[in-house]
Amino acid sequence: MKPGHLGSTVSAVEAPPRFGPQNDACRPIHELLSLVGDKWTMQVVKHLGNGTMRFNELRRAIEGISQKMLTTTLRNLERDGFVTRTIYPTIPPRVDYRLTDLGYELLGPIKALAEWVSENRHRIDEARARFDGQQV
Amino acid sequence: MKPGHLGSTVSAVEAPPRFGPQNDACRPIHELLSLVGDKWTMQVVKHLGNGTMRFNELRRAIEGISQKMLTTTLRNLERDGFVTRTIYPTIPPRVDYRLTDLGYELLGPIKALAEWVSENRHRIDEARARFDGQQV
Repeated sequence: MKPGHLGSTVSAVEAPPRFGPQNDACRPIHELLSLVGDKWTMQVVKHLGNGTMRFNELRRAIEGISQKMLTTTLRNLERDGFVTRTIYPTIPPRVDYRLTDLGYELLGPIKALAEWVSENRHRIDEARARFDGQQV
Repeated sequence: MKPGHLGSTVSAVEAPPRFGPQNDACRPIHELLSLVGDKWTMQVVKHLGNGTMRFNELRRAIEGISQKMLTTTLRNLERDGFVTRTIYPTIPPRVDYRLTDLGYELLGPIKALAEWVSENRHRIDEARARFDGQQV
C-alpha cells in the first residue's frame, strides 16, 4: 500500500470538497434550509433590515442570544454573502454589520414567514391549549 | 416554613403557566420564530404539503433526521395545530400524519423561503468560496 493511501481515501469519502462546482440536483433541501432556517439567523437578518448595527447593539436587541452564538451566526451570514463586516480603525476599533444586496433580498421571505406567524399566533396558542388540555 | 413552600416558589419562577391568556405584546419574536423556524419543522411541513404520510415514509424522505427528532418535531407540529395524527386500529396500528388547514397556510411562506434559497444558492456558494479563499 502506498503511504497515505488509506488517509486519502477516507478523507475523499468523509469530507466533500469545500470548493469546486456543486451538484445542485443532489444538494439536499435540508442543507439549503440550514443556511437560513434557524431562529437566530432569521432574527439577525430581520434586525439588520433596519440598518447598520454594531455587535453589542445586535446582542442587546436579540433576547436570549449568547455572545458565542451571535459571533457564529454573524460569521456564517458573512461567509454566505448576506452580511458585510466593516472595521473602523478607531480606539477601540468599531465593527459594523450590515446587510448586503443578497441579504436584503433574503429579508423578504424571512419577513413574510415572521409576519405569518405573528398574525396567526392566536390560532397556534389555541391549538396548543387544546392539545395540552387533552394530555392532562 | 410551610411544607412545599420553597418548591412552589421555585416552580412558579422557573416554569411559566402553560395555559391562560398570553401577553401578545411581550411575546418575543424569537419565541415566534422558534415555533416554525428550524430546518426539520420546515422540511416536515414541506413534505406533508404533498399529502398524508406515515412516520416511516417521512423518516425516509427527510435525509439525516433521527427517529427521536422526527417524533419531537411531529409532536410539536401537532401541539401547535399544524398537523393531525390519525391512528387506524389495524395490526400493526397504522399512523398517518397530514397538514391541517393552518398547516397548509404555513406552507406558503415556508415554500417561498425554500424557493428563494433554491433559486439563489449559486450566489451563496460563490460568496462562500470567496470568503473561504480569503481565509486561507
